[in-house]
Amino acid sequence: MKALVEDVFVGAFGEVAREDAATTRLAELAAHGETLAFTTDSFVVTPLVFPGGDIGKLAVCGTVNDLATAGAVPLQLSCSVILEEGLEIALLRDIVRSMAETARQAGVRIVTGDTKVVPHGACDRLFVNTAGIGVVRRGVAPSSAACRPGDVVLVSGPLGDHGAAILAARGDLALETTVESDCAPLHRLVGRLLDAVPGTCFLRDATRGGLATVLNEAAAASKVGIELSETAVPVRDAVRGLCEILGLDPLYLANEGRMVAVVPGDAAEAALAALRADPLGREAALIGRCVADRPGRVVMDTAFGGRRIVDMLTGEQLPRIC
Amino acid sequence: MKALVEDVFVGAFGEVAREDAATTRLAELAAHGETLAFTTDSFVVTPLVFPGGDIGKLAVCGTVNDLATAGAVPLQLSCSVILEEGLEIALLRDIVRSMAETARQAGVRIVTGDTKVVPHGACDRLFVNTAGIGVVRRGVAPSSAACRPGDVVLVSGPLGDHGAAILAARGDLALETTVESDCAPLHRLVGRLLDAVPGTCFLRDATRGGLATVLNEAAAASKVGIELSETAVPVRDAVRGLCEILGLDPLYLANEGRMVAVVPGDAAEAALAALRADPLGREAALIGRCVADRPGRVVMDTAFGGRRIVDMLTGEQLPRIC
Repeated sequence: MKALVEDVFVGAFGEVAREDAATTRLAELAAHGETLAFTTDSFVVTPLVFPGGDIGKLAVCGTVNDLATAGAVPLQLSCSVILEEGLEIALLRDIVRSMAETARQAGVRIVTGDTKVVPHGACDRLFVNTAGIGVVRRGVAPSSAACRPGDVVLVSGPLGDHGAAILAARGDLALETTVESDCAPLHRLVGRLLDAVPGTCFLRDATRGGLATVLNEAAAASKVGIELSETAVPVRDAVRGLCEILGLDPLYLANEGRMVAVVPGDAAEAALAALRADPLGREAALIGRCVADRPGRVVMDTAFGGRRIVDMLTGEQLPRIC
Repeated sequence: MKALVEDVFVGAFGEVAREDAATTRLAELAAHGETLAFTTDSFVVTPLVFPGGDIGKLAVCGTVNDLATAGAVPLQLSCSVILEEGLEIALLRDIVRSMAETARQAGVRIVTGDTKVVPHGACDRLFVNTAGIGVVRRGVAPSSAACRPGDVVLVSGPLGDHGAAILAARGDLALETTVESDCAPLHRLVGRLLDAVPGTCFLRDATRGGLATVLNEAAAASKVGIELSETAVPVRDAVRGLCEILGLDPLYLANEGRMVAVVPGDAAEAALAALRADPLGREAALIGRCVADRPGRVVMDTAFGGRRIVDMLTGEQLPRIC
C-alpha cells in the first residue's frame, strides 16, 4: 500500500520534496512582494467525487483561494492525506491527478506532503489537508476590518452551487438536479480585480457558512452596517428550487469558487468590469453597500419589499460540505 | 461545538490569524537566512495521550523537527484538526494547551488554523495536521545525498522509546513498562550541532520506520555503504525487553525526539560534544560510519560477532504510531 501510495503521489506531483522539507530562496519570493502569506485547511467532504469536482480539486482550490483573497499570489502547497485502509487505489489516483491538474491551473506547485494510512473504520475513506504559501501583492491590503460606509459589496457569481451540488450528490434525498459545484481557483479573478482596484477593501471566498457568514464577519470587524438587496443576489433557479424544497437559505450555502469583494463606491464600475472580464466572474453582481447605520449588522431588503436581518449561522447548515 | 472549539483554540494560541491567512514580512524572515523551508505532517496516533506526550505535543514536535533537521530555524506552524463529534472538550482543551506549550518551548508561533467536525464514526476521535515554515541557517545544507566514505553516524540518544511507549500504552498487550515517549522539539539540539559542525552532511529525525529507514535512505541517496556497530547503538533495557517479547527490532521503532546525524569523521568529537551539551543529547553516541563498499546498503556488526544487512522496512511495523 505504502509503495503504491508513494507511486501515486510522486507520479502525479513530480517534484514533491524527497527530503522532509521543501526549500525556496527568499529572493525568489521577494520578486512577488514583501509579505509572506501562510494558510491551511483540511477537507472532509462527502462524497469524495461530486458534480463539478472532487476532494482533491477542492483541497487545492480552498487553499489557493484563501491565499488569493488575502491579496497574495499563491505559490506553493503542501498535501497531506489520511487514507482508510481499503480505499480503492484507482479512485485515489484520480483524486491525486485532479489535485495535480488543479494546481497546474492555479500556477502553484505541490512541494511537500505526507501520507498516513489508518485501519478500516478509523476514518471515512479519505481526508486531505493542504497548507499554502504565497506572497502578498505590493500595494494591496484587503482586510475584514477595512470596510467603510459608502463601499459596495460585490459577488463574483451565483451563490450556493457547491452546497447544493454536494447535497444533491449525497443521494439520500433522491433529488435530481443539474447543479455543479462552483469549485475553482480564484487567483486569476482576484488578480484582475486587484489590478483594476488596488484599493479593494475586503476579499473573501464564501465557503462554509456562505455569503451571510462572510458579510457578518466583515460588518463586525469593520463596525459598519451592510445592506443587501435580495433581488440583486444571483442564485441559480435550480439552487433556489432545492433550497425551497429543503428549507435552506442560499445565503448560507457553501461556495468554493465565489468571491465576495467590498470596494469603494466610486470603484464599483471598474471592479465589476474587471470581474466580468474573467470567465469565473462573468455573472458578477453588485449586491449591496456598507452604511453607517446598525454597525455590525447585515440586513436585506427582500424581494417582497420587506427587510430582514441576515444573522450569523449558528451551527453548520450542512456537515462535511468541504 | 463550533463556538466552543473556537474558544479552545483562540484561548490557547492567542494570535491565531482571524483572517484566512497569516502574514509575515519577508524582511523579518531574511534575518534568519536566505532560504525558506516548508513542510507538513498529519498525526493519527492512538492513544491520543501516552506516557511522555499526546497528539498535540507530537504534532508540534514532528513539524518543528522536520524543519530543524532540514537545517532551518522553525518559525511558524499551522494547526488543522479533524474532530469526531462527541470528543470530550476537556481532552481537546488539554491537547490544545499541550500544543501551545510545546510551541512556546520550540520558539514557534501557531499562526493559522482550521477545524472540521465530522459525525460520530467518520474519524477516530481526533486527527491533527501541522504545516510549518522556517528559514534555513546560513552556510548549512544537510542532505540525504551528501554522505561520503569516512563520515560517521551519530544518534542523539536511545532509540525506540516512542514506539515502545505507544505500544505499551495501547493496553491490549497487558504489558507494563516505564518507557516514556522521547517526543521533544529538537531545534535547540540541532542548533548546537550546526553551530559546532556547520559542515554536518545529513540530519534526520528517526520517526516512522526508525533508524534503519533513515539510514537506508541516506545510503541510497548518497551511494555509500553504512556500517553500524550493534553494541554502540543505544537502546534502553526496557525497550530492548519489550522488543524481545514482541519480536520487534528497535532499529525500526519510531522515535519523535531522536536525531540521526552524519558528520565528517574529523568532526566526530566536536559533534558528540555539542550534542551531549544539550539535555536532549546527553546520551548521544557514535554508532557507525560511511564506507565506499556496498553503496546503498546498511550493514550491522552484531553483538555476537556476526554481520547482518539492515534492510528497508517493508510495510509498517506498527500502525498509527504518529
